[in-house]
Amino acid sequence: MPDLNGAVTEQDQQRVWAALDKFRIEIPSWGFANTGTRFGKFSQPAAASTIEEKFADAAQVNALTGVSSTMALHVLWDLPSGKSDIPKIQQLERTYGIRSGSINPNLFQDQEYKYGSICNPSAEIRGNALSHLLDSVEIGRALNSRDVSMWVSDGSNYPGTQSIRRRIEYMEEVLAATHAALGPDQRMLVEYKPFEPAFYHTDIADWGMALELARRAGPKAKVLVDTGHHLQGTNIEQIVAWLLHLNALGGFHFNDRKFADDDLTLGSIDPYQVFRIFHEILSDTTTNFNDIAFMIDQSHNLKGKVEAMVQTVATAQELYAKAALVDHAKLAELQKSCSLVEAEETFREAFWTDVRPIVRAWRQSHNLPANPLTALAESGYVEKISQERSAKNAASVSSYA
Amino acid sequence: MPDLNGAVTEQDQQRVWAALDKFRIEIPSWGFANTGTRFGKFSQPAAASTIEEKFADAAQVNALTGVSSTMALHVLWDLPSGKSDIPKIQQLERTYGIRSGSINPNLFQDQEYKYGSICNPSAEIRGNALSHLLDSVEIGRALNSRDVSMWVSDGSNYPGTQSIRRRIEYMEEVLAATHAALGPDQRMLVEYKPFEPAFYHTDIADWGMALELARRAGPKAKVLVDTGHHLQGTNIEQIVAWLLHLNALGGFHFNDRKFADDDLTLGSIDPYQVFRIFHEILSDTTTNFNDIAFMIDQSHNLKGKVEAMVQTVATAQELYAKAALVDHAKLAELQKSCSLVEAEETFREAFWTDVRPIVRAWRQSHNLPANPLTALAESGYVEKISQERSAKNAASVSSYA
Amino acid sequence: MPDLNGAVTEQDQQRVWAALDKFRIEIPSWGFANTGTRFGKFSQPAAASTIEEKFADAAQVNALTGVSSTMALHVLWDLPSGKSDIPKIQQLERTYGIRSGSINPNLFQDQEYKYGSICNPSAEIRGNALSHLLDSVEIGRALNSRDVSMWVSDGSNYPGTQSIRRRIEYMEEVLAATHAALGPDQRMLVEYKPFEPAFYHTDIADWGMALELARRAGPKAKVLVDTGHHLQGTNIEQIVAWLLHLNALGGFHFNDRKFADDDLTLGSIDPYQVFRIFHEILSDTTTNFNDIAFMIDQSHNLKGKVEAMVQTVATAQELYAKAALVDHAKLAELQKSCSLVEAEETFREAFWTDVRPIVRAWRQSHNLPANPLTALAESGYVEKISQERSAKNAASVSSYA
Amino acid sequence: MPDLNGAVTEQDQQRVWAALDKFRIEIPSWGFANTGTRFGKFSQPAAASTIEEKFADAAQVNALTGVSSTMALHVLWDLPSGKSDIPKIQQLERTYGIRSGSINPNLFQDQEYKYGSICNPSAEIRGNALSHLLDSVEIGRALNSRDVSMWVSDGSNYPGTQSIRRRIEYMEEVLAATHAALGPDQRMLVEYKPFEPAFYHTDIADWGMALELARRAGPKAKVLVDTGHHLQGTNIEQIVAWLLHLNALGGFHFNDRKFADDDLTLGSIDPYQVFRIFHEILSDTTTNFNDIAFMIDQSHNLKGKVEAMVQTVATAQELYAKAALVDHAKLAELQKSCSLVEAEETFREAFWTDVRPIVRAWRQSHNLPANPLTALAESGYVEKISQERSAKNAASVSSYA
Repeated sequence: MPDLNGAVTEQDQQRVWAALDKFRIEIPSWGFANTGTRFGKFSQPAAASTIEEKFADAAQVNALTGVSSTMALHVLWDLPSGKSDIPKIQQLERTYGIRSGSINPNLFQDQEYKYGSICNPSAEIRGNALSHLLDSVEIGRALNSRDVSMWVSDGSNYPGTQSIRRRIEYMEEVLAATHAALGPDQRMLVEYKPFEPAFYHTDIADWGMALELARRAGPKAKVLVDTGHHLQGTNIEQIVAWLLHLNALGGFHFNDRKFADDDLTLGSIDPYQVFRIFHEILSDTTTNFNDIAFMIDQSHNLKGKVEAMVQTVATAQELYAKAALVDHAKLAELQKSCSLVEAEETFREAFWTDVRPIVRAWRQSHNLPANPLTALAESGYVEKISQERSAKNAASVSSYA
Repeated sequence: MPDLNGAVTEQDQQRVWAALDKFRIEIPSWGFANTGTRFGKFSQPAAASTIEEKFADAAQVNALTGVSSTMALHVLWDLPSGKSDIPKIQQLERTYGIRSGSINPNLFQDQEYKYGSICNPSAEIRGNALSHLLDSVEIGRALNSRDVSMWVSDGSNYPGTQSIRRRIEYMEEVLAATHAALGPDQRMLVEYKPFEPAFYHTDIADWGMALELARRAGPKAKVLVDTGHHLQGTNIEQIVAWLLHLNALGGFHFNDRKFADDDLTLGSIDPYQVFRIFHEILSDTTTNFNDIAFMIDQSHNLKGKVEAMVQTVATAQELYAKAALVDHAKLAELQKSCSLVEAEETFREAFWTDVRPIVRAWRQSHNLPANPLTALAESGYVEKISQERSAKNAASVSSYA
Repeated sequence: MPDLNGAVTEQDQQRVWAALDKFRIEIPSWGFANTGTRFGKFSQPAAASTIEEKFADAAQVNALTGVSSTMALHVLWDLPSGKSDIPKIQQLERTYGIRSGSINPNLFQDQEYKYGSICNPSAEIRGNALSHLLDSVEIGRALNSRDVSMWVSDGSNYPGTQSIRRRIEYMEEVLAATHAALGPDQRMLVEYKPFEPAFYHTDIADWGMALELARRAGPKAKVLVDTGHHLQGTNIEQIVAWLLHLNALGGFHFNDRKFADDDLTLGSIDPYQVFRIFHEILSDTTTNFNDIAFMIDQSHNLKGKVEAMVQTVATAQELYAKAALVDHAKLAELQKSCSLVEAEETFREAFWTDVRPIVRAWRQSHNLPANPLTALAESGYVEKISQERSAKNAASVSSYA
Repeated sequence: MPDLNGAVTEQDQQRVWAALDKFRIEIPSWGFANTGTRFGKFSQPAAASTIEEKFADAAQVNALTGVSSTMALHVLWDLPSGKSDIPKIQQLERTYGIRSGSINPNLFQDQEYKYGSICNPSAEIRGNALSHLLDSVEIGRALNSRDVSMWVSDGSNYPGTQSIRRRIEYMEEVLAATHAALGPDQRMLVEYKPFEPAFYHTDIADWGMALELARRAGPKAKVLVDTGHHLQGTNIEQIVAWLLHLNALGGFHFNDRKFADDDLTLGSIDPYQVFRIFHEILSDTTTNFNDIAFMIDQSHNLKGKVEAMVQTVATAQELYAKAALVDHAKLAELQKSCSLVEAEETFREAFWTDVRPIVRAWRQSHNLPANPLTALAESGYVEKISQERSAKNAASVSSYA
């Protein structure tokens, strides 16, 4: 193992090493595609527009990082023909050595979801939404994917225009029916978000609502924390602590933001917060680590897509490694005696320490490049796919007007 | 009944009238006392500094409004000798015709609560906090008060200095023990607040945490919503809807704010939001209206204290009357058909309508002054108490330094 | 004049009437078009997709309200061929009796603006942006439009990726060159916005930056306040007061929001705030009222577009009428003596008063329908255009994927 | 010089070293005193309550850090007899080797400032406030202190209760008169804050207002940025960049916060933001570094006061050293070519690097302890003053009630 600096003991390093051994993070297929804001998309020549291209890109990311061998799928975009696309996906899994990760139904894009999907006052539309959810569950089971990640974007834009109460009941019904269809190894992850695309009220606005709905649905339903889905000033690590305490944390959609759900790359705005979230997880003794799905959910509107993904995986590893450096026994002692400055210094010591040498050593010991971003640049991969894909991509630009 | 205007039918007016008949709002004893910010208090000559003065002021407010016959008590400030002050309170109740309202323990002022009260790492300090809570329960029972309103101000100021997880367990233990002591007609209301006086984390930060703690404590524990205790952008009426749905809404601490927990007078910043909160309650069909405690919790730092209280009661009545004007059947129909503009106009019609004539008529029919604020001015009450109290108050100014 | 209620004197009514006489509000062409969020657009059969349809819709709104005879144009969308579209616009002005309002350049949609337009590190791209601005100025002059409304959406998504400082200098250069091209009766309005579509930094983030840039550009540059472009908790009416004090207020983009730049209909979330903004304007004695451009800037993603526009104009009139009711002399007296409760009651008296009867009377005296929304419904206009446009609109749906 | 790690060149280290050579930070006298929230103060045995104790504590901090030889004074608290206390302060300067830093007038504590000081509608009260400001200027001149730091806490709590416009004029008048009294080497720093202690409007709410007021006052007036005085989501480093661009940055009040003006220790919540602020300053080429006053303004409500101060100075140095590591030439190149990921990695490389070894080496080369906090613990200083001061401090506890 490398010499970090005098302050990092052999024991510290072993703890970090062991933590790295068990850390995996899932990448989203849509992170390789062109995305944008309501004001338009900036098209990138290297963007993936087919599911095969997304598998190829994911394989490249995993070849460089070694910790991201699953890819989240978005049903509508990646399996446009629904269940009949399953064999194709399975073929791609074999070809690229990437397994299907969480399955993401789409409840926001169809024109009939204008006033809501599973909260829509129309029983027929709610029924259609349920069908899509049941298909998604079936797809997940066929692909041996554990998690169905449910983001319900329903809400309303104006006070008085919808009954908040009645819509709770609608949701409960659909979620229970979806839960009933889950296979023995499947889970349903309920995501929450305070606003956008609805602006006045979002039907699942916070972790409390997501938790209630998950419980009503059944024991395989857990809460999914998207780090960008909180009001300004929220203490996210406290929510993580509560969900762990209640045995209700299903996993994360990782990203960063400055104001709203900006879907920026993890740790780009507030890396200390990411460190604190990892700390809550690593100091937990009640939850099976593998029951927490670490997933990326970002929109790489401006950054190169493959570059952004590699950068995110590397940053996640490094912030996680910092959290693994925390000396829990010493910290607990100082917290108990309310030695504030000493406790904080002990905690922050781990954050200040440059863990990159040890992460690099870990990578090299697994025959991975020490610096995945540099390796990506040297590989010429992005240039290659840019050439292959650019003509096709130039045509697909959409805009606000 | 008065003629509001052409758009308000006889039936509408009866609905409002009936709603007014059942509306009562509790005033807090501390609303009559000198309060301030961390930068100092501005002393008012008419401020109350004894419990008798607070009872006198409450009686004056109720004489003018007729809907505020109970006064919330703060154990530490109003019963400084604890249980032995009970007879004195009972005597004041008889003298002033004001009953004791909710009982408010104090878990923030003692020096030993520096690092927390019921979440303090010290078992001894937690024990002391529990004792105070048990005393408060006993006081409540002796005074025939239904609710013990628990604001737990515990938290920490710096990441890493306290274990968020461990403190959850501490709280659960104390709250369960407190619940066990409740009499058959008593309830425990669990309040939440995202920040202040602790700045990094508050142990009960949001309604989800309050709800979990209430449930663990037992069936007599409900959630208390203080309208100033939310992050910017929170949809408070949605939380109210959820708590009603879950049969977990215990009551309100009403006030208004622009940014943080400013404790301004109700409706002074965003009256439309107050209207929406009342609407959720009035459109609820599952909860016993009397199970919802409507309480004021404000700090009248600059406004005259009795004036501010009368103004708040009157404003609460008027915004509540507006909400009572909403045509629920028509609104439900329009919500179901997603007729957004029509639904909003139906909803807002009630808000735009000037209900003051009907509220005035209701007051007069109960031998109350049509305009309580004007009546207060004419009564000379504030001048009288200013003269009586001013010398005493001049001495009690405290400051930041 | 109608009898409002006892509290509203003949003199009050005359003041409101006179205020209504001078109030005009501009509607945006894009408010009639399909808009959405980054997650997709919900297509409406009645949406306008051609400039002629937008003129027709604007004419309909003005026929019903009588106060919205100008329509803001978006250069890229409404004059896709640039200056050569001017004769076509002039023809439509004559046909529909609607004049061209403010001219809105587009600095965000072209692929080359990925990293900025007038702040782009590339001198060539900045030059292209300047060309577009100069064209916009020329279009404005040809159409006898006073204002070029400049929303610069430039910014960056990640710390360190752009030089904030250097970009200020780029902007100053382009804005000065644009100002130099303004005709004698033209103005340049500089808009600010704290985030979106850029997430880490927006080059013109607040009114202070907009003001500095306007001053550097020249005397015909003023600040444009979009009510949705502020951080949570901002006191917008205070900014309005400061801009009036500095003689730098050019106008408004009116809309409402709960959290971010939600572009909801005016007054739908916080009507009291709109009232307060109008109050600052109506209590100003230094600015020529006509120098303030009142413009709507909303996205009617869910509401019917023509309905939403009519509703907004009516609501703006009514909230403005409430502000006109304020008794300035009495209020000034009470503010001076710091009679807080009395001052607030005097101020709010105007807000509580139902001014709809007087606004209806004003409309009828101008041969306009008393209730424009009802009149719209009775006109069958929306049904008519839905039939005419629906086939065309069904094809144009875009989405996130 | 020490070996940081392979990535840090000799040249990098020299740059950091040179940067450390010129960095000084001022500590506030009130950081050693008991402070609290509106809910009460937790008294500390080691708290300073006399000006001599504050000088002693400051001397101790400077003995350990070597970069904090000036102490900001609060006129009301530290010179309670005003100008006649000057000789006493001068004596303490000589005794303790600490010079007087910025002079802080107090415009919030006197009872007559209830409705404002320099914005008060009463000309007499404004006159009194001006007198205090003129005294403060004179004190500053006598003490050879460069800066008078003006925090104007004026504002209002309720819409309509004060004239925002009129109060701007009041302020301008007083500030101009104060500026006129400044000596040739004195400056006036105008601070801004969006809320607290006033809740609806603060008269100097943001940097734009502070800048306007500073300009009106005169050329010796600059803007003071308190890092805790911003709305959630504000990009503070952008404001710093603008103030540098406009040659209007006077200095900083450093602290950290999670939600409001929490006055926590610098870098405790968001260290990356502090790094970014230092980066803007270090990449500036137009401002004289010495014209920027780096000052701490924190309330150590829970942390030990001397410990918190030492910790803050050390953290400031370390985050500043990280910023000094940034390779400006390389970064500028990557920003110009919009190489986002590379630019960000270059920028963040400096943040990830553990600069503590080089800061320690710098300290040792100046005969300072490598780790000031450890040295403080070993010195026994806090225990010593606790014993000396504890009896006195126990008596001085104040509270909310």
